[in-house]
Amino acid sequence: MTTIKHVVVVAGVGNGTGTGAAVARLFSREGYAVALLARDGDSLNKFADELNQAGGEAVPFPLPAYSAEAITSAWSLIKAKFPKPAYEIRVAVWNAGHAVFKKFLDITAEDIEQSTQVNIAASFSFSRQAILTFKENEIGAGNGKRGALIFTGATAALRGNVVTSAFAASKHANRALSQSLNKEFGKENIHVAHVVIDGVILTDRVRERFAKGPEWEQNEDARLNADSIANSYLYLVRQDRSAWTWELDLRPAHEKW
Amino acid sequence: MTTIKHVVVVAGVGNGTGTGAAVARLFSREGYAVALLARDGDSLNKFADELNQAGGEAVPFPLPAYSAEAITSAWSLIKAKFPKPAYEIRVAVWNAGHAVFKKFLDITAEDIEQSTQVNIAASFSFSRQAILTFKENEIGAGNGKRGALIFTGATAALRGNVVTSAFAASKHANRALSQSLNKEFGKENIHVAHVVIDGVILTDRVRERFAKGPEWEQNEDARLNADSIANSYLYLVRQDRSAWTWELDLRPAHEKW
Amino acid sequence: MTTIKHVVVVAGVGNGTGTGAAVARLFSREGYAVALLARDGDSLNKFADELNQAGGEAVPFPLPAYSAEAITSAWSLIKAKFPKPAYEIRVAVWNAGHAVFKKFLDITAEDIEQSTQVNIAASFSFSRQAILTFKENEIGAGNGKRGALIFTGATAALRGNVVTSAFAASKHANRALSQSLNKEFGKENIHVAHVVIDGVILTDRVRERFAKGPEWEQNEDARLNADSIANSYLYLVRQDRSAWTWELDLRPAHEKW
Amino acid sequence: MTTIKHVVVVAGVGNGTGTGAAVARLFSREGYAVALLARDGDSLNKFADELNQAGGEAVPFPLPAYSAEAITSAWSLIKAKFPKPAYEIRVAVWNAGHAVFKKFLDITAEDIEQSTQVNIAASFSFSRQAILTFKENEIGAGNGKRGALIFTGATAALRGNVVTSAFAASKHANRALSQSLNKEFGKENIHVAHVVIDGVILTDRVRERFAKGPEWEQNEDARLNADSIANSYLYLVRQDRSAWTWELDLRPAHEKW
Repeated sequence: MTTIKHVVVVAGVGNGTGTGAAVARLFSREGYAVALLARDGDSLNKFADELNQAGGEAVPFPLPAYSAEAITSAWSLIKAKFPKPAYEIRVAVWNAGHAVFKKFLDITAEDIEQSTQVNIAASFSFSRQAILTFKENEIGAGNGKRGALIFTGATAALRGNVVTSAFAASKHANRALSQSLNKEFGKENIHVAHVVIDGVILTDRVRERFAKGPEWEQNEDARLNADSIANSYLYLVRQDRSAWTWELDLRPAHEKW
Repeated sequence: MTTIKHVVVVAGVGNGTGTGAAVARLFSREGYAVALLARDGDSLNKFADELNQAGGEAVPFPLPAYSAEAITSAWSLIKAKFPKPAYEIRVAVWNAGHAVFKKFLDITAEDIEQSTQVNIAASFSFSRQAILTFKENEIGAGNGKRGALIFTGATAALRGNVVTSAFAASKHANRALSQSLNKEFGKENIHVAHVVIDGVILTDRVRERFAKGPEWEQNEDARLNADSIANSYLYLVRQDRSAWTWELDLRPAHEKW
Repeated sequence: MTTIKHVVVVAGVGNGTGTGAAVARLFSREGYAVALLARDGDSLNKFADELNQAGGEAVPFPLPAYSAEAITSAWSLIKAKFPKPAYEIRVAVWNAGHAVFKKFLDITAEDIEQSTQVNIAASFSFSRQAILTFKENEIGAGNGKRGALIFTGATAALRGNVVTSAFAASKHANRALSQSLNKEFGKENIHVAHVVIDGVILTDRVRERFAKGPEWEQNEDARLNADSIANSYLYLVRQDRSAWTWELDLRPAHEKW
Repeated sequence: MTTIKHVVVVAGVGNGTGTGAAVARLFSREGYAVALLARDGDSLNKFADELNQAGGEAVPFPLPAYSAEAITSAWSLIKAKFPKPAYEIRVAVWNAGHAVFKKFLDITAEDIEQSTQVNIAASFSFSRQAILTFKENEIGAGNGKRGALIFTGATAALRGNVVTSAFAASKHANRALSQSLNKEFGKENIHVAHVVIDGVILTDRVRERFAKGPEWEQNEDARLNADSIANSYLYLVRQDRSAWTWELDLRPAHEKW
């Protein structure tokens, strides 16, 4: 009897300190093979090494850009690298994004172009590949699904605000996509979910940019742990077919909201 | 060294086949002592026996009615039965409710009275007791909380519809209460959450009323398992302080929504 | 040929400086007879006098309390005072409410009791009388309706917050009621709408309580005019059957939201 | 003393039977000069003629495409055609859109490209021009605004559904943009609003496509009149600064929702 190894595809791994990376680490520990997508090839390779040295099976798929074409090509490579029946791609996580926080009149045509490329064109393409791939899976014995596609959302997915006209537009678009897909493909046992991250995640970038010091960094009531976010993704994947979630919000205990 | 036994208080246990009962069963298996609240003393005793025979520690607290006073009295008894430091009440689940599905003009003053008694007066009283109790707990080492209060919501908590004017009003009220409490007591590490059940749960009552037959009953894509709902409550309780959820929705894979 | 005089019933007229009073004034100027409901008989009489001296036809119906029974009795008197065919009750405005802004643990059983009495029991009763009355009207030639029932909502109808657990619960309940009624009675050409007032209205009470001085009072960018709110109620009533609104929000231009 | 003529800019005029055209007609009757934007030059010219023959002052600005650049160029021409101080552009209506109603897997890269071009790139560009133009106006004596920008939304702006993944994504994005702009520019007395059209509008295209016959067409309870929608836009423009609306919904009386 052959065992099938499940694969998670994670887009948006960054420099290995944020949500995408934490998801990859957790699923790797849980026995998934991991396909990693990001633009920065060096960070990506380093992060794949980390997972592999920890006993995982991680493969980096660097993207020249977050374009529809690049995403499609990457999935072809992923499928070739993790072929059936030894592997089955069961989980896909869209954690990529291009965040523009500018006053409206400072937003450039380039910002809009980039934002729609990454957040809409590429996320539609990623979703398409995930759905097409999942459709060829059998319904899993454990959770009653062919696959799970999870989107990382943000506060800006729920409401626009004074410096989020561009960011909110694309996060709202992603949320609408995730809801449409949940409704369209639920009946084929493909689970699509949207996680609203409503607070600041402790990442290297946040450490540098905000430089709030070790007290804030160690205050788990004040900022999100990427690892805790990752737990929610694993929980969503494990939910069985009789009771699954489209959307949940996550924020630190002391967040004002 | 003394070990402390955690206690879950579950209001709305019904006849032992729905959400409240499934939550009680799951938390009992996870090592919680269980305080059970419901109006029907016979069912309640029977259900407590079931849990105890399975190795749990369950105590029934029958309510004469879902009034603010009855709830307050029940909590006094619960605290006396599960005193510190041997016990700590760490989780409270408000699963009670008075559901009125009638055309608006068929709704009686009695319906409104009952509905506000159970869904508002009693749920405020239950929340008050839970919050007061949690405030005296230390922050837990595991999840960084003093306690978790979870409300069972419904589709009607999100929108009114043609035969839900009374039911939606009270479920909206509960949702607002849960959100207010989440915002007010999050900073004291008390976690309040709201679970939107968006579909039909397979219970004895549903079996009788809908009589859709064994095919539908066994179709996990079409109706919610109470056990699967219970899993989400346990997940919410376990979420750590850095990333917790106010609201999630649950529905079967094939639900049209 | 007899002309029919339309009647508006306004509940919650206060001391004549808020939304209810502004609605009554505007509809009176527009030729409606006005039935005024409030608890404070003196203010009510004074306000009716004001309208009558300005050429209106206003009748005060003082309420002993905002109970379901008192509301029902008041409608009997209103119907007797404004009988068909000379009069037709075409508009009803629920502007009453019991606002509790307290920290959760300071809320008393009395607060809950009062809040549910006024905001739920009485508003259901008011809605019932309005719907029953409208059902006996012909569809109006102008707007294609048998009648319009408008609820005054608040920010707290959309989300709970740290000192609004009681207030938000009841405003959410009212919003759910209004949506349910819109869906149930739209097909009988009865228009139910909900207006979200998202800011501070300049009333005598606000003048006293906040005492922000004449500069703030005259700053129309910073607080709502009750007269401007009233304009939106008239607009809603005039919307024709082909395109009517369930909900709109109102706030001052400079409001932070 | 010179009188200033107010100008409305309407993007998305179609063939003259929908919302954009109805808005143009109404504002023309109310004394506004009208700048008309659409892709089909012939229909546009014909429609401008219609308005001019009715005594209006309408100028067509045909667009080669709904691109950011084409929109920017058109606004330059509009400003040159309607120069200060004789004219003031006070109202802008974004009624353009590219609607894709397809199952997700039938959506092409071209659909996404078109959809983001029109619904995001072009709408951001249109908003930018409107805001920049309004900022140079004085605050109007009548309504306390420098200008009003109104977006035509749809049900799909509020929730995704089985064939709306592309359409909902872009309508959600537009809604987020409108909310962000409302919050950012309210304090400069620029009013941005979003109208949710929740039903079928009777247009030539609908007449052809659905061919439901004259009975349905004349049933004002079943479909929206573009003229009634236009009334809501005029109402929004007239709202004064003390109480203005970000969002309202419009649907026929008998719509199931």
